[in-house]
Amino acid sequence: MRNQFRALALAAAAMTTAIPFAARAQEPQGDVAWDILAGLTSEVGPRMPGTEAEARARVWAEARLKALGFSNVVAEPFTFRGYLRGRDEASLVAPIPLRLAITALGYSGTTPDKGIEGEVVYFPTLDALRAAPAGSLTGKIVFIDHAMKRTQDGSGYGPYGAVRRQGPAIAAGKGAMAAVIRSIGTDSHRNPHTGSTSFPEGVKPIPAGAVSNPDADLIARIARSGKPMRLNLVMTGRTTDNLPSGNVLAELPGRDPSLPPILLGCHLDSWDLGTGAIDDAAGCAIITAAALNVHKTQQPLRTIRLLWAGAEELGGWGGRAYAQRHTEPHALAMESDFGAGRVWRVSFAMADMNKPLADRIAAALAPLGIVRGEGKATGGTDVRPVIERQKLAVVDLDQDGTHYFDLHHTPDDTLDKVDAADLAQNVAAWTQTLSILANEAGTISATP
Amino acid sequence: MRNQFRALALAAAAMTTAIPFAARAQEPQGDVAWDILAGLTSEVGPRMPGTEAEARARVWAEARLKALGFSNVVAEPFTFRGYLRGRDEASLVAPIPLRLAITALGYSGTTPDKGIEGEVVYFPTLDALRAAPAGSLTGKIVFIDHAMKRTQDGSGYGPYGAVRRQGPAIAAGKGAMAAVIRSIGTDSHRNPHTGSTSFPEGVKPIPAGAVSNPDADLIARIARSGKPMRLNLVMTGRTTDNLPSGNVLAELPGRDPSLPPILLGCHLDSWDLGTGAIDDAAGCAIITAAALNVHKTQQPLRTIRLLWAGAEELGGWGGRAYAQRHTEPHALAMESDFGAGRVWRVSFAMADMNKPLADRIAAALAPLGIVRGEGKATGGTDVRPVIERQKLAVVDLDQDGTHYFDLHHTPDDTLDKVDAADLAQNVAAWTQTLSILANEAGTISATP
Repeated sequence: MRNQFRALALAAAAMTTAIPFAARAQEPQGDVAWDILAGLTSEVGPRMPGTEAEARARVWAEARLKALGFSNVVAEPFTFRGYLRGRDEASLVAPIPLRLAITALGYSGTTPDKGIEGEVVYFPTLDALRAAPAGSLTGKIVFIDHAMKRTQDGSGYGPYGAVRRQGPAIAAGKGAMAAVIRSIGTDSHRNPHTGSTSFPEGVKPIPAGAVSNPDADLIARIARSGKPMRLNLVMTGRTTDNLPSGNVLAELPGRDPSLPPILLGCHLDSWDLGTGAIDDAAGCAIITAAALNVHKTQQPLRTIRLLWAGAEELGGWGGRAYAQRHTEPHALAMESDFGAGRVWRVSFAMADMNKPLADRIAAALAPLGIVRGEGKATGGTDVRPVIERQKLAVVDLDQDGTHYFDLHHTPDDTLDKVDAADLAQNVAAWTQTLSILANEAGTISATP
Repeated sequence: MRNQFRALALAAAAMTTAIPFAARAQEPQGDVAWDILAGLTSEVGPRMPGTEAEARARVWAEARLKALGFSNVVAEPFTFRGYLRGRDEASLVAPIPLRLAITALGYSGTTPDKGIEGEVVYFPTLDALRAAPAGSLTGKIVFIDHAMKRTQDGSGYGPYGAVRRQGPAIAAGKGAMAAVIRSIGTDSHRNPHTGSTSFPEGVKPIPAGAVSNPDADLIARIARSGKPMRLNLVMTGRTTDNLPSGNVLAELPGRDPSLPPILLGCHLDSWDLGTGAIDDAAGCAIITAAALNVHKTQQPLRTIRLLWAGAEELGGWGGRAYAQRHTEPHALAMESDFGAGRVWRVSFAMADMNKPLADRIAAALAPLGIVRGEGKATGGTDVRPVIERQKLAVVDLDQDGTHYFDLHHTPDDTLDKVDAADLAQNVAAWTQTLSILANEAGTISATP
């Protein structure tokens, strides 16, 4: 896919007679969604919550949304307890010296600059770690393996994600000096998957990281051999209070301002290892392009509001800040935050009285190859707080996540991974859905 | 593929009731080729020429070859001018701050510890760089893009590899302070491809590195935008004289010691970013397992000699040392050094009088799905010096390299990338070929 983005002829190209790849630069031209995606990843780059990069992203977002014709474009600041990455390194010391591909997890404890060294105790599963006796891991470095499966709907992320979210705290509670996990990911590249972990009140954070899957394979292999294993870990990042972040809001006003708006969420921040293309520049690109599409033909009845949330990756801080501040009524909420794979399923969380509305949406999406799901829509991290607080109706346009966890939270989350045709299918699905929702005059209610 | 190598039940596993992945550890058991491959990658690890790791690999190799029943196992030391890697880092400074995935090339010049910073001049091709006026690049960091294509037979490596082999020296000759290239590779991951470059006499080496393809995409995109680009580069590795290396030789003696031996080559060293699975532990595994297979049924007429060469990656030093030392006659040479993809083609370089021999080999390989090539066999880097010096006959068993340059010289060259069935097909093809060659009583002669 990288060939899509090769260089066009430049000044320097005039020096040569053959520019074989010039014809291969296939980025869509004049495409709103693609331009947002490419702009965020290439003109801003990684957008780690609480950093100057995330602040630059807000400036970029406000300017872009205004230029696209949105109203009431505003950045709403908030502060949060975040994590600022330092230097992350890990090396096997025994049985062989080997540099590992590692990343610290968000909210990891901090090592001295020269690192820490210890014996590795291998656990094949999180349950095996849970079963280890209290105090049995004192002074050890715990390694937690697992067996995440590739799924279309991301359903492996809940159970296997627990290894990342809870594993280090469980290890800390049993006395471990550090915890390393197999990346929560389905690829086989030397790119580790980061993400947040958490240490409950009363548990002192320990350094916690994830190694790439090939590195985890090697560690598992050594564990099988029975040879003692020692690891050196450097993770100098720090959990830090009162970091600045913010949400960016923008509206396309409807014909009837008295009707509550349709809220569309995505997140502007990203992990720092890649450039946050599928997570979640693509989401912001999709909802924004679709909202503009709906307004192209005719101004709809209801206002469409975009929430480009901040600090999602470190625990959904932007979504909570939004829900707290925006107590005015909303009609319904949706989110795009599961990559850039095609929409394959639509799900609803609506009152029975709105069944005709749901039926119309499902019928409009069927020609795009989208099936109707039987599960209840839940929205994404950025809109869930307002959904829960206001008991909002929800529509989910579920994306195909078969390959999502190949890239999720890795250095590999870059622009080249997005297929332009898949992105366009997302925009089409959102446009169809929104054009119906934003013109619904009747009350839209949540499942009771 | 990584699932092949998940952990078997361990002591710790006894603590848990469910070990869902235990059944998924699918490494072949008691397979000579797999054991060599897994041993070199997991028990030795990366084997950079001239390092203690390469020395450990020789010790490992001697012990393993003796244990497998080989005779005349010996390590033949030599010294060479090599390159010892230091710290490699690169960051865009403008138009946005961004850490790049970079690796220094072998024989790169050295930066100060804090690095160097300069303006980037983008060249879409090596020809464009060649056309730049003398002195026009003084104080600049040159970036060289290119458009390597995926091929089955590796034919893109010659022309596109020139960007790596010659590009930095051309840039240096025009006054550049450093050169960065797009990785010579066909993947789209944040794993750069290393490899050697060279600076001819009279050209002072400059720091030279390769960025991953997604990073190169971003650089090309910024270049298209016309924004000034600045880069900070740290590459503290050093070219160093008189490094120790060595070849490991082993024989299975034939019934007639007066007949010249069949020479089979591979290389024991590897680049340091991965663990050298496809380049070239797989090659050593294949030739060794095949030689043993031939001896399983009956001792053949001719001696089979293995050459596990040293310091191949920094310019084929082991192969030259072997040819210089071993002036005794050889019958024929072959090499396995193009990954672990299936053999799809056999090619010959033999005198007309040996056409019946070639025909018999081709006929024996056809049932394995191997076609007869029309080109002339050339052998690999480790056996080519002795081939050229002694005008030896050659048989090439060409491997499918469609995916070879996804992994070549990257951190991703690890055990999980090898498919056990593909490896077994290689061993079968080599066994068939060797069983015919080693029992050939008549003279085997090269193409005149």
